[in-house]
Amino acid sequence: MNLSGRALTAPASPIRRMIPFAEQAMKMGKKIYYLNIGQPDIPTPRVYFEYVERYKPSVVAYTHSAGLLELREAFSRYYEKFSVKVLPDEIIVTNGGSEAVLFAMAVVADPGDEILVLEPFYANYAGFAAQLGIKLVPVRTYPEDGYSVPDKKKFLEKISSKTKAIIFSNPCNPTGAVYNESQLRTIIDVALEKDLFIISDEVYREFTFDGCKAISALSFEPILDRVIMVDSISKRYSACGARIGAFVSKNKSIYSAALKFAQARLCPPMTSQYGAIGLLSLDDEYVESIKNEYQARRDVVYEELKKIDGAVFQKPKGAFYISARLPVDNVEEFVKFMLLEFDVGGKTTMVSPLDGFYATPSAGLDEMRIAYVLNCDDLRDAVRILALGVEEYKRKVR
Amino acid sequence: MNLSGRALTAPASPIRRMIPFAEQAMKMGKKIYYLNIGQPDIPTPRVYFEYVERYKPSVVAYTHSAGLLELREAFSRYYEKFSVKVLPDEIIVTNGGSEAVLFAMAVVADPGDEILVLEPFYANYAGFAAQLGIKLVPVRTYPEDGYSVPDKKKFLEKISSKTKAIIFSNPCNPTGAVYNESQLRTIIDVALEKDLFIISDEVYREFTFDGCKAISALSFEPILDRVIMVDSISKRYSACGARIGAFVSKNKSIYSAALKFAQARLCPPMTSQYGAIGLLSLDDEYVESIKNEYQARRDVVYEELKKIDGAVFQKPKGAFYISARLPVDNVEEFVKFMLLEFDVGGKTTMVSPLDGFYATPSAGLDEMRIAYVLNCDDLRDAVRILALGVEEYKRKVR
Repeated sequence: MNLSGRALTAPASPIRRMIPFAEQAMKMGKKIYYLNIGQPDIPTPRVYFEYVERYKPSVVAYTHSAGLLELREAFSRYYEKFSVKVLPDEIIVTNGGSEAVLFAMAVVADPGDEILVLEPFYANYAGFAAQLGIKLVPVRTYPEDGYSVPDKKKFLEKISSKTKAIIFSNPCNPTGAVYNESQLRTIIDVALEKDLFIISDEVYREFTFDGCKAISALSFEPILDRVIMVDSISKRYSACGARIGAFVSKNKSIYSAALKFAQARLCPPMTSQYGAIGLLSLDDEYVESIKNEYQARRDVVYEELKKIDGAVFQKPKGAFYISARLPVDNVEEFVKFMLLEFDVGGKTTMVSPLDGFYATPSAGLDEMRIAYVLNCDDLRDAVRILALGVEEYKRKVR
Repeated sequence: MNLSGRALTAPASPIRRMIPFAEQAMKMGKKIYYLNIGQPDIPTPRVYFEYVERYKPSVVAYTHSAGLLELREAFSRYYEKFSVKVLPDEIIVTNGGSEAVLFAMAVVADPGDEILVLEPFYANYAGFAAQLGIKLVPVRTYPEDGYSVPDKKKFLEKISSKTKAIIFSNPCNPTGAVYNESQLRTIIDVALEKDLFIISDEVYREFTFDGCKAISALSFEPILDRVIMVDSISKRYSACGARIGAFVSKNKSIYSAALKFAQARLCPPMTSQYGAIGLLSLDDEYVESIKNEYQARRDVVYEELKKIDGAVFQKPKGAFYISARLPVDNVEEFVKFMLLEFDVGGKTTMVSPLDGFYATPSAGLDEMRIAYVLNCDDLRDAVRILALGVEEYKRKVR
């Protein structure tokens, strides 16, 4: 009685594998600054609950498998602000961005096929690939140049007859990189030359700093038929638990195929869909204020991180993450040290080891990700403690 | 630029493919009795919304990937009523029963593997199997004996080295059959002899009539380690749109593997989970009253169907469906006829062709499914019109 190969090889969440050590630290009475999970601390706008309460139908019935038309219309209007023209019937509302990634991979690749992924990458891509029997083939980026898109040559080296698509997030989780037009054109050139689909995960679209803008893959006319855009309200509105995302494609075959998968699971959650309509009705001022808050936080983290001698990173332009190489051999060991053997006045800081965000074996062992999901004062204290921890750890292992 | 094989071969929903004809009939001004979709008309208990409104956290955050502990505890207490002992950490809350089926199939079978299915079966099983690259191998049941479980021999004939599991729903959608202990023992014998997993879809558990009880696969001690139970609150509480289901397994390896898939998609919807806690707090009286209503409806449909000369069926014992062989060659053509060419005083009736619920090619062409999701008066009128339609259709095609 053996489980499937995909069940055995599916990766455990790299974020969750460190939780037992945090639990131990809590039992020791430590206060932990959690910079390890991308769960925003910013309150969800109350309009979510107002809309949830406004729609109380007699029967909580299935909605359209592609989601409520009213919600798809709201998404469509929202994308227009970014000069992305998408009709309601080019959108499937999904159970978070997660399900949109699952549908996207399933539509373009069969078991045994390959999808190129810019690494380090959002770790759950590996979970969906395993579930579907797809192989993720990494194209590596490095902290030295702010994890930017490498030369075309680096992509071409990794392409085989089984390569079907390229997936990436922009702005990038976990690196905070925002790809400029020239970097995106590298990816587009490869896709056109090698006849690949592009899966563009744009859930951090609004969170870009210093006047920089994220460019949607759906702004490039020549590839409109080969793009699947993944979206989510989770980060934008601090509504991760609503589980409302979107699968967007202007290619009718792609759309119809994904809709068949959507029909099999019947529909996204009704109550959350109404809440999401409320959230999408918020004006630009709301998003602008959140963005300013994240930019201030990024600045704090950046300034404090610079104090760590030997840390390698660039100032990231987007999302709410900073990845960096630390002057330690093994960040996982360092994270355990921070939790179990170190504190400053009873306080310590938890970050994510970055190796779980790589597909290349033993890559990223000396890198970490910080999610800046605390207020500026806490962040300053947290990264100060992290820096002190690095010094102490170096002394200890020397 | 080709889509994946699984995208191309995934079946379209057999229920939804008839919708364009219904739309045409509506444009003609006809009133349609919809007996084609398993969307209950019974109001969702208001406690769903009371609980939704009671829990308005500052941040709509991710919950545990297995679902809120409080909800898993509520499920655990609920199963106890059926003498099924399941701990909260043997339960993963899922996006409807749908996602539980997806996880179950993914955990037991790899691309190219086979899962036996009692047919006719809940059509979406085929959608999930296609998505995962799994082959469903049908073991056929027939209207003549009320679609009961066939002899062990019929299962053994279909087993190959690639067979990993048996899936079925009990009470059965689409047939309304409820498998008694001896029928379940046939399935169990096969699973034990051939070392297979059992995926038991028990979402219609409460809807059993004439004193008959549905027996959970988790009541059989010798197979506790090989059972995955699929559950859902959708039908029980008329809350299909909440998308809250459950994946239940007492086998720790199965559970851990499914939890990895659950972690990749982060969590089930928070708002619906709170609503579901409310629904699970309802007492037995609620479910008893719903069950009595469905039993009364079944009796109406059964009595009226008996008036169709040549229809083949047994009185079903559960769920809210009746499947039957009709005295017509092709039910799909008959359904189109009912919608486009027939009415009684401006009214007509829509049922589901059953062929979409079969994997065996051209099986079920002369069978239909009725979902009795209307009140007794409407049902009586609807099935009376159906009977008149059959008579008229037979005259027409003769």
